[in-house]
Amino acid sequence: MDPFTHQPADAVSAWGETKLILALRRWLGNTTPPDPFGIGDDCAVLPPSRHPRLVTVDPVIYGEHFDASLSPRAVGMKLLKRNLSDIAAMGGRPTEAVIALALDPSVSLAWVKGFYLGLATTARAHQVSLVGGDVATLRGGLVATLTLLGEASSPRVLTRQGGQPRDHLFVTGRLGGSLPSGRHWKFQPRLAEGRWLAARLDVHSMLDLSDGLAKDVLTLASPGLTPALDPTALPLHRHVTLAQALTDGEDYELLFTVAEKTSPATFLAAWKMAFPRTPLHRIGQLAPVSALPPGTLDLSPYHGFEHLR
Amino acid sequence: MDPFTHQPADAVSAWGETKLILALRRWLGNTTPPDPFGIGDDCAVLPPSRHPRLVTVDPVIYGEHFDASLSPRAVGMKLLKRNLSDIAAMGGRPTEAVIALALDPSVSLAWVKGFYLGLATTARAHQVSLVGGDVATLRGGLVATLTLLGEASSPRVLTRQGGQPRDHLFVTGRLGGSLPSGRHWKFQPRLAEGRWLAARLDVHSMLDLSDGLAKDVLTLASPGLTPALDPTALPLHRHVTLAQALTDGEDYELLFTVAEKTSPATFLAAWKMAFPRTPLHRIGQLAPVSALPPGTLDLSPYHGFEHLR
Repeated sequence: MDPFTHQPADAVSAWGETKLILALRRWLGNTTPPDPFGIGDDCAVLPPSRHPRLVTVDPVIYGEHFDASLSPRAVGMKLLKRNLSDIAAMGGRPTEAVIALALDPSVSLAWVKGFYLGLATTARAHQVSLVGGDVATLRGGLVATLTLLGEASSPRVLTRQGGQPRDHLFVTGRLGGSLPSGRHWKFQPRLAEGRWLAARLDVHSMLDLSDGLAKDVLTLASPGLTPALDPTALPLHRHVTLAQALTDGEDYELLFTVAEKTSPATFLAAWKMAFPRTPLHRIGQLAPVSALPPGTLDLSPYHGFEHLR
Repeated sequence: MDPFTHQPADAVSAWGETKLILALRRWLGNTTPPDPFGIGDDCAVLPPSRHPRLVTVDPVIYGEHFDASLSPRAVGMKLLKRNLSDIAAMGGRPTEAVIALALDPSVSLAWVKGFYLGLATTARAHQVSLVGGDVATLRGGLVATLTLLGEASSPRVLTRQGGQPRDHLFVTGRLGGSLPSGRHWKFQPRLAEGRWLAARLDVHSMLDLSDGLAKDVLTLASPGLTPALDPTALPLHRHVTLAQALTDGEDYELLFTVAEKTSPATFLAAWKMAFPRTPLHRIGQLAPVSALPPGTLDLSPYHGFEHLR
């Protein structure tokens, strides 16, 4: 749906900020807390947290992350799921979110309603409470920025750092073709998988794939190590080339490293018991720079998605 | 400073996202935590919190909250201070922030550097840790959205609700003329004042003035009550009319209600001991709708700032 309308009566400017905020509280329904601790005050108020806390922020921007071909519900779902995937990548549990909406006065009320209904659907599915936000004018544009809070599910939080020499590299799901297939908004954030992985001490580091494997995998390489990918082992989606799987971005799959001493076959068997419907593949290892295995994929011709270029 | 440049070598597109993020970590200096728990991972990781937590989000948008006449340092300071003022309005203590920057590739590196240096200056002054963020492309625009976390300073959190019949209405500082005077970015968020007020049980409700007194004061009125302002008691900035003081917005002063049984003179004396340099004025009361005092200001001709109109 085109977010912008030429009919003044159908645009958010017909209502203005105050009336719009009343309406979006209705659209969010039971995913937003009652007064006085939610939308409508200067801050949202949340209970103390017992575990380490997680914070992540990601926007969806018209012309970058979505366009008129996507439904507003899909945009709302995508915005929250992008952030949920970041919580999954630390092995965490999502808790609350705030949304800042910056939009042209000609954006249609129907678009905004669909967007908030999509947000609410995904929030309900993952027990996320939408506790606050902001609405402001952005001439000629449409940006929605969501900040998601979460909690670590175990005393340990999995970060991108911690990979050891010869750690196995594993990836969930399949790669590439996210945009044409619609997977860039239909995907399921790997939250249960992330928590399961964070509880295993032989899993050393993790991230979620957003800018493409070729770019993202480099951030797991501790000093002196380099990702040695086996090009024949990469799990590709149908109709996807190796180059697309390496660079398309928006896969939202988990990429993680596992101790060398863990047998990949044993690890895969345990995974299959826990997540029979989520594919998992060993795609290589973190090799010492001086000891690359034969057949290692040369990543230098591939670049993942880079903003501002 | 005009954020946009026609010189490709001076623009953020000359660096791209990855190099820019490395640079902004340098510009933020010691206000951003070291790896692995800060900028660069999928989430920031924060310690558990003992007290109730606060969350607020506010953007600065080119063409709305700033323009080319403002220095980028001032924009960075304003962005954090707007959010600090929301924490002050709950009587809280700010702790961490994340920033989502959405910008055209033609924004200059000099502008972004100044902006982050301004953010860092204000963060340092208020012991706020800048723990993460996002950088993305927004064609033709510039939006920076900051989410600020905080903690309640006492078991009680002051909200907009809780005003009682005949509560006194007080306001800090002076009102009006924020934009032409530069106070919209030079102001000092009333954090110490907010904490002091939250600790007093006879203070019933509070907010920070952002959209103008005439609009904001209505949100303190519990059912059956209405704000009865004394037009002769409003503290105006120099060269400011009453109408401007009521509607200009961006005052970032605290407006709060105090129990009727508290003597205003006693309250003002205690305030002067605690904050000798912060003006405080009683400007009216929360009156029962059926019992307006004589001389009450009729607010109906005045409208505060409303987005999307």
